[in-house]
Amino acid sequence: MEKFMDKDFLLETKTARILYHDYASKMPIIDYHCHINPQEIAEDRRFENITQVWLGGDHYKWRMIRSNGTPENEITGDADDRVKFQRFAEALPRAIGNPMYHWTHLELQRYFGYKGVLSGDTAEEVWNLCNEKLKEDGMSARGLIRQSGVKVIGTTDDPADSLEYHAAIAAEGIDDFRVVPSYRPDKAVAIYKPGFVEYIAKLGAANGVEIRTVADVKKALGIAMDRFAALGCKAADHGMDYVMYRVADDKQVEKVFKRAMAGKAITMEEAEQYATAVTLFCGREYARRGWVMQIHYCVQRNTSSRRFAAIGPDAGCDCISTRECSEALTALLNAMDKDDLLPKTVLYSLNPADNALLGSVIGCFQDAGAAGKIQHGSAWWFNDNKTGMQQQLTDLANLSLLGNFIGMLTDSRSFLSYTRHEYFRRILCNLIGGWVENGEYPADMDTLGKMVQDISYNNAKAYFGF
Amino acid sequence: MEKFMDKDFLLETKTARILYHDYASKMPIIDYHCHINPQEIAEDRRFENITQVWLGGDHYKWRMIRSNGTPENEITGDADDRVKFQRFAEALPRAIGNPMYHWTHLELQRYFGYKGVLSGDTAEEVWNLCNEKLKEDGMSARGLIRQSGVKVIGTTDDPADSLEYHAAIAAEGIDDFRVVPSYRPDKAVAIYKPGFVEYIAKLGAANGVEIRTVADVKKALGIAMDRFAALGCKAADHGMDYVMYRVADDKQVEKVFKRAMAGKAITMEEAEQYATAVTLFCGREYARRGWVMQIHYCVQRNTSSRRFAAIGPDAGCDCISTRECSEALTALLNAMDKDDLLPKTVLYSLNPADNALLGSVIGCFQDAGAAGKIQHGSAWWFNDNKTGMQQQLTDLANLSLLGNFIGMLTDSRSFLSYTRHEYFRRILCNLIGGWVENGEYPADMDTLGKMVQDISYNNAKAYFGF
Amino acid sequence: MEKFMDKDFLLETKTARILYHDYASKMPIIDYHCHINPQEIAEDRRFENITQVWLGGDHYKWRMIRSNGTPENEITGDADDRVKFQRFAEALPRAIGNPMYHWTHLELQRYFGYKGVLSGDTAEEVWNLCNEKLKEDGMSARGLIRQSGVKVIGTTDDPADSLEYHAAIAAEGIDDFRVVPSYRPDKAVAIYKPGFVEYIAKLGAANGVEIRTVADVKKALGIAMDRFAALGCKAADHGMDYVMYRVADDKQVEKVFKRAMAGKAITMEEAEQYATAVTLFCGREYARRGWVMQIHYCVQRNTSSRRFAAIGPDAGCDCISTRECSEALTALLNAMDKDDLLPKTVLYSLNPADNALLGSVIGCFQDAGAAGKIQHGSAWWFNDNKTGMQQQLTDLANLSLLGNFIGMLTDSRSFLSYTRHEYFRRILCNLIGGWVENGEYPADMDTLGKMVQDISYNNAKAYFGF
Repeated sequence: MEKFMDKDFLLETKTARILYHDYASKMPIIDYHCHINPQEIAEDRRFENITQVWLGGDHYKWRMIRSNGTPENEITGDADDRVKFQRFAEALPRAIGNPMYHWTHLELQRYFGYKGVLSGDTAEEVWNLCNEKLKEDGMSARGLIRQSGVKVIGTTDDPADSLEYHAAIAAEGIDDFRVVPSYRPDKAVAIYKPGFVEYIAKLGAANGVEIRTVADVKKALGIAMDRFAALGCKAADHGMDYVMYRVADDKQVEKVFKRAMAGKAITMEEAEQYATAVTLFCGREYARRGWVMQIHYCVQRNTSSRRFAAIGPDAGCDCISTRECSEALTALLNAMDKDDLLPKTVLYSLNPADNALLGSVIGCFQDAGAAGKIQHGSAWWFNDNKTGMQQQLTDLANLSLLGNFIGMLTDSRSFLSYTRHEYFRRILCNLIGGWVENGEYPADMDTLGKMVQDISYNNAKAYFGF
Repeated sequence: MEKFMDKDFLLETKTARILYHDYASKMPIIDYHCHINPQEIAEDRRFENITQVWLGGDHYKWRMIRSNGTPENEITGDADDRVKFQRFAEALPRAIGNPMYHWTHLELQRYFGYKGVLSGDTAEEVWNLCNEKLKEDGMSARGLIRQSGVKVIGTTDDPADSLEYHAAIAAEGIDDFRVVPSYRPDKAVAIYKPGFVEYIAKLGAANGVEIRTVADVKKALGIAMDRFAALGCKAADHGMDYVMYRVADDKQVEKVFKRAMAGKAITMEEAEQYATAVTLFCGREYARRGWVMQIHYCVQRNTSSRRFAAIGPDAGCDCISTRECSEALTALLNAMDKDDLLPKTVLYSLNPADNALLGSVIGCFQDAGAAGKIQHGSAWWFNDNKTGMQQQLTDLANLSLLGNFIGMLTDSRSFLSYTRHEYFRRILCNLIGGWVENGEYPADMDTLGKMVQDISYNNAKAYFGF
Repeated sequence: MEKFMDKDFLLETKTARILYHDYASKMPIIDYHCHINPQEIAEDRRFENITQVWLGGDHYKWRMIRSNGTPENEITGDADDRVKFQRFAEALPRAIGNPMYHWTHLELQRYFGYKGVLSGDTAEEVWNLCNEKLKEDGMSARGLIRQSGVKVIGTTDDPADSLEYHAAIAAEGIDDFRVVPSYRPDKAVAIYKPGFVEYIAKLGAANGVEIRTVADVKKALGIAMDRFAALGCKAADHGMDYVMYRVADDKQVEKVFKRAMAGKAITMEEAEQYATAVTLFCGREYARRGWVMQIHYCVQRNTSSRRFAAIGPDAGCDCISTRECSEALTALLNAMDKDDLLPKTVLYSLNPADNALLGSVIGCFQDAGAAGKIQHGSAWWFNDNKTGMQQQLTDLANLSLLGNFIGMLTDSRSFLSYTRHEYFRRILCNLIGGWVENGEYPADMDTLGKMVQDISYNNAKAYFGF
């Protein structure tokens, strides 16, 4: 019987332990995709209590507490922070097998020095301990970044964003970590979603372009790319409900855009024509700039109208879509590849049944210039758990070169989430350690140690060019 | 080497053994969804021989014997019962890794006291032993229910059913177990299937309504709900080839119904309009009554025309459908949820690739009022096996609160199938025990023991309100 | 810690070791589906160097080397063979967890007697050793077949093929192994693909039919079947992008064919009408002849236009399709089954998410006359790896009779790939051994030993009728 989450947590073999403790754990972190608010870093935000940190905007946790039959008021409503924390602590023990159980205790151990078990019974103790600890110097936004060994943070930013906080951070000249924007033009692509017309005006204003045509949209997007590049951006991110590919000529795309801007109805086919054109424009531009294109797809967002009306987006009411888009995906990549303008690309599907698909797709478009030019992204969102990561790593290993994998990201809004890199590294080392001890790979610790260090840090550094 | 199916069967760790033997195994059974014929309980049916019990109506076993190249006559035809048993016994050893191998031997051990191994060679011995045993008092329908520790049986019944046997059982006043109907209005929904017109007449007659309109259908369905409720019904069940969601106004739905009742062709879109309207009506009614709505979907039925002509439905010629319906599913739930009329709901997909989808969907609609209001149902039919259950439990744990799971059901036509609860509990305890021994959850036996007892029994009791 | 790939490689329990060493490993090989060029057997081809053998036409390896960022010239281009081998050797250590890592070392051990580890550092040593060894007598095409214990090779051949090399081999009268053609009429079915018109002319010429109608196509296909049968053919193979089923009357199908032959555009629906008609014709003919029909589906081919233009098909740019076709699949099988003209059929989907689907589909159409008449084919192409095979075997065991499985095939173009049968047998024995040691099946070594020998060899022999 292993002790609960002790130093050898998830490390089931001796080789796994050596790989983790002697190699992986020593590496710094590049968190190349997250949803940290750069303002909080610029202002070095401090937190009053653990409910603010953990439950302020974490829809993963909201879902979990809701699943315990808790009234909404005590989750996202105006109940007292202490009550909200109590409800979370009461739900947690039911979350056996859930990554949140591990994330929570990793964060309690690493950042708060708490070695106990959080439950309704210990909530008071943990509440007091955490809140006291949060007053310490090292517990500000920057303090947490530093004590986590983070070297690069890639935030997620809109082309219409002023990037003022990124500029402020850059101007300040922090010397032990970097914060860079990532380019996410989803609102400029999703012509079928409410608010598109208003957004286009905003995009134009932010980039000094009066937008009347699709050509103007592209111009504004290009200017925004320059602004992002000036602040160190190396990656873009496209969030798609599903992957679409429907090519039309420029004239038709302009017609669709004109109709949409005039407030007229467009068909889904027309929306896909516009979206395909803008997505291809972006991808080719990324290729020219050496950026990485991330594609996150197969998501249903805001499935509950009632919660959306009450809370808005990111309320914990998103889920997997299983819509089929394998043929659109390869067509999209091919459209860029055939002109030699396919950027380095990372593919993430929210549907875990797509794991093998992605492993097989990336192999079709690999090319000289980057080891693992096309990547199957780390297990994402609903798959970001032990079995989900094992599955992604195994499928990737089966179908590609695991040694060239760029590894983990937090995708998080919280400064305490860096322990997810530890969680990932333990799972990675355990998987590899298991293979080695089973005679499936030579027990050559130099090669293996370098490989886990590469996957933990070096590969991402080289791939993004940080 | 573990002994074949001994007392620690499937319990690989010490913690698993303690959890099963000291906690889970002590709990009674609520079999909230099955296909037991209530007449057999009302009449306390006895069985002449083991072929009657095992092979009389079990299409799982028919498929298995067919897969051995056995002539149909010796499976469902007029061959002698002893011959049929022989063919089953000959096929069984080839079924290594198949749940039927385990179910069969669990039933032989628990109900017949046979500790050997069934094969062609031992068939004669087992045939004689079982048939002798079947003459004993405790081997009637009620005897088997009692010796299995079953407290509640939820059968599956049509709104056009008289429920006479349920009434008879209720009138008799059995004091150690309950038999309650479950409401399955599939035939009232499936306007596109043969026999719809005749069925509607039957539905009207059974509920005292002359049905001329969709409003009349709803009226009859509502009256049937009252009749079911009077006999203790707490749950409904909707079997769907796929989840459909196509909303139309009442006028259009009435038009579709009128055409169908007049024997005219309707399109699949029109059928979906009618089906959506009736399904939503039912769901909202269940919410008002506090019932649980079960949705079973992704099934292809009667795929072999030849067998259907020869044997009829439930001939062992059904299979998984992989049709995509994630967006229809969330739309259907949302349509009820937005008016606060989403009942407690249990989702079962026959496509195991939907496991993560379901885990993610249920989280979108959780709410106050019930712990785990929306449930991901236990591994169903073709997934009801060791790896299928492990997968469902793991995905559920990853994405929700496993501690609030309502657990197992047999879905069976047989009084010997209650050992499937044992099979499930062993797998559950083994999974949890493994996590604990691997340091992934504290070895707190009080919390863990309560959790497995909750999942085995208490959660279902509270959820259905038995 | 197990030694790297020693004699007990992948055999984790004592039972697994006994089953493999004492039973499975002793069986010869029937490689019933591969892409070996019969000319190489007829001419008893020899190989100059290891790059020729390994990298000449192996798109699996090309993908792997590309994934390491290697320039195309050093993969499929005109770089020196030694350089190409070096690039392969450098990429290999990054392929931890990849079946190619194991295949490569199994081949080095079994055929070249090399017990070391291939990497950039050892490439020179391995290059010299292999090239020296390739000069030996036993290393010709036939030598490799003989030393691998292969008794039957089923190649893949077009109905327009002259089969001259098969005829030559047959005429020669080799007495220790057989080489038989398999019938693959894909080009006659795929009316929507470029080159159809030219192909039909070729098909007619090869079979002495002037083709003007679909009836003529069928006549030519039937004559080809006779030619194939005369050379020992027992199996056909249909490769489909997806399974289609769209029935039309003969008149309509003739109309579609006429349009296509006249070079006019046809719709995808029309193409499916023609394809369905020809596929059903073939299947019914196979049934009459007692042949086995293999169906391989869910593939996207030639996804990269750029590589296709440069290299052609089979360039390593194919991938999984996740297109849904469960309903078309059952409809296609039923169309043959309802007239009692469903041949023995083996189903392979490239989408591993279809595993359970296939396990459930085969059970719907089992019948007297063959044990396991309908088979779920061995893990294929992107699934042909340890976890893929475990998954296919487990799903098959869950849903059917694993004991009746016809087992492994190489699907390979190489004479060194027969070690994949060893790889499969080790995985099979390990899976079964694990179940036995876990108390899930009796430790009856006679029954178990026979079962693994059946799956390794006897079942395929009986099923195909070799």
